[in-house]
Amino acid sequence: MRDVAIIGVGQTPVGEHWESSLRSLATDAIHAALEDAGTDQVDALYVGNAFGATISSQSHLGALIADHAGLAGIEAWAVDAADASGGAALRAGYLAVASGAVDTAIVVGVEKSTDMLGSARVRARNTALDADYEAIHGATLTALAALLMRRYMEEYGVELSAFEGFSVNAHANGSKNANAMFRNTLKPGSFARSPMVAEPVGLFDSAPDADGAAAVVLTTAERAADLSPHPVRLSASAVATSRFALQDRQDMLFLSAASQSASLAYAQAGISPDDVNLFELHDAFTILAALSLEACGFAERGQGWRLAQEGAIGLDGRLPISTFGGLKSRGNPVGAAGVYQAVEACLQLRGEAGPNQVSGARTALIQSLGGLGSTAVTHVLQALV
Amino acid sequence: MRDVAIIGVGQTPVGEHWESSLRSLATDAIHAALEDAGTDQVDALYVGNAFGATISSQSHLGALIADHAGLAGIEAWAVDAADASGGAALRAGYLAVASGAVDTAIVVGVEKSTDMLGSARVRARNTALDADYEAIHGATLTALAALLMRRYMEEYGVELSAFEGFSVNAHANGSKNANAMFRNTLKPGSFARSPMVAEPVGLFDSAPDADGAAAVVLTTAERAADLSPHPVRLSASAVATSRFALQDRQDMLFLSAASQSASLAYAQAGISPDDVNLFELHDAFTILAALSLEACGFAERGQGWRLAQEGAIGLDGRLPISTFGGLKSRGNPVGAAGVYQAVEACLQLRGEAGPNQVSGARTALIQSLGGLGSTAVTHVLQALV
Repeated sequence: MRDVAIIGVGQTPVGEHWESSLRSLATDAIHAALEDAGTDQVDALYVGNAFGATISSQSHLGALIADHAGLAGIEAWAVDAADASGGAALRAGYLAVASGAVDTAIVVGVEKSTDMLGSARVRARNTALDADYEAIHGATLTALAALLMRRYMEEYGVELSAFEGFSVNAHANGSKNANAMFRNTLKPGSFARSPMVAEPVGLFDSAPDADGAAAVVLTTAERAADLSPHPVRLSASAVATSRFALQDRQDMLFLSAASQSASLAYAQAGISPDDVNLFELHDAFTILAALSLEACGFAERGQGWRLAQEGAIGLDGRLPISTFGGLKSRGNPVGAAGVYQAVEACLQLRGEAGPNQVSGARTALIQSLGGLGSTAVTHVLQALV
Repeated sequence: MRDVAIIGVGQTPVGEHWESSLRSLATDAIHAALEDAGTDQVDALYVGNAFGATISSQSHLGALIADHAGLAGIEAWAVDAADASGGAALRAGYLAVASGAVDTAIVVGVEKSTDMLGSARVRARNTALDADYEAIHGATLTALAALLMRRYMEEYGVELSAFEGFSVNAHANGSKNANAMFRNTLKPGSFARSPMVAEPVGLFDSAPDADGAAAVVLTTAERAADLSPHPVRLSASAVATSRFALQDRQDMLFLSAASQSASLAYAQAGISPDDVNLFELHDAFTILAALSLEACGFAERGQGWRLAQEGAIGLDGRLPISTFGGLKSRGNPVGAAGVYQAVEACLQLRGEAGPNQVSGARTALIQSLGGLGSTAVTHVLQALV
């Protein structure tokens, strides 16, 4: 298996891009990543996207985007794993380069999720749930996250305020990120007063669905050393799943797919959680942030929220998370979110994170979740020089 | 790069499966393939599907199907390349095993396309076209195929009857396939009298969209030799794209993606078209059958239809195609079609094709097209023993 590295990154701002199409957003990110990599020689394109077919009436995004980006001819196809589509597309690119079948690949995550409102948007969003046993009964991702959060609060005896630290941290970091959707910091008391979305999930517990595109250029670690002044090694790539629906899980409060894919990734990279300098996790809901920290070995069961309360997750803390704002403040461009994580981790490892820089960052963990952790995609990134 | 082989195949009948869900169909094919492979040890699942989100309100099929099939925990994600989704999922499985990241993978193609009728079905179908520049103006895949066919007839001076042989062959083969959707043979004169769908594309020029699922189990060629009495090597795997829309192509009558991916596949397998014993091509329309034969080096430009007229494509001909009925008679379970091709090619190479057997088959070419050839996925399969 060949070692794989990232030699270029690109992203568009995250937000409501009503003036841009899927292909335009994706092309902007692709061109930025190719320019950053200093190459236009690419063999393959892997696209992460969740809602093209339902919201934009557009599937077949591989060939469509390759064409629009001026890359017609190359291998191109799209990957779906709901909210984890971006992470899964990165996995596809990793496999292609690691195998030897492809020398240079570009992975782009792209989403337009704000072109629909109301029930049409909910229907599109709900395709990521179980259509026959969850969505049809009126469940939504937020409603299910609320069940999970309420169960956590009951089981571990914590109050809503236990989750405040995640939101405060995300907005503090996002406020310094020019590509973030919501650049406001959270005033003291705002979290407690936040309107409920699905009790106990409030406005500041849930990330905003957004539009955006992010891209990374992958090649072999060997070639990367020649091509890039700051190559980043993809030291591990792992995917795991769990029982799909919450009610089928033996232990609803343990994200087994997140845990399993993280364990596989640690083993492949030869590291332990202690070696991780920053963690871009899937904070679509604050409850997922807490559970992800617990599943990935950073906190005991029921204690994930303490890292936030103790300030351990800040840029200068023991384990910085959501360093550019995470899904909460940077915004959640669903099928692109996993690629944004990769871009942001690279910027950290290259020392180019500006005001968001985690000092001395050498090893980053990124994790993309589909649904409420039904799918988990985990990668370890490490600075090569 | 590790050599990859297929050690198990499974399929459901193709047709209208109103009583089965996506997950049920997929699980039936997966279990059949695992039983055929004699193993239940699988590391990863790659799903090919085109219309889950639009027709069944269901995406996130990797985790969903893994769970239903009793495989929760393993890596799982889905692949979209419109009609070529099945071929692209096979590509994903190939890359995973070839890379060394995955030892045993299952690739399943699954589609339910008959649960909608009328304009809702057309809208779902049209997501595979260019939503902004084709579908929005009223184009459909069949209408665009009609333009292509008319252009071919005009350019090369052939009549509609030139395409009859493809349909006659497909139905002759499909009539002997218990899994085929339409098992009728074509009576003399039927083709000429067939009702028009989009002139000059008639009923017998176009394949019926269908439901169904097919699966193959992949592992390394080395392990395959121990595990299976009749392993089939995936000797080549290649994907290419072309300009997306017909009007952007320099030469509308040349399927450049089909040609490019076939050339790559021949080179990887170290074979020439002369070495191919059977060709499962993407005969969603008879015009695509003719153009595919030309693009893949089996006929000169404008001469593809002659192979059908001369009987070269029959089971005992020089180049048997659509040996189990192809998309036309076996039916077109869109995102599953590419995996059906792989299953059928394996049965041929294992000498288990029954009344559809191509005598002495050792090397098979399979090719899955997305849209009107915007994406092409080509694999070479060879008997290992």
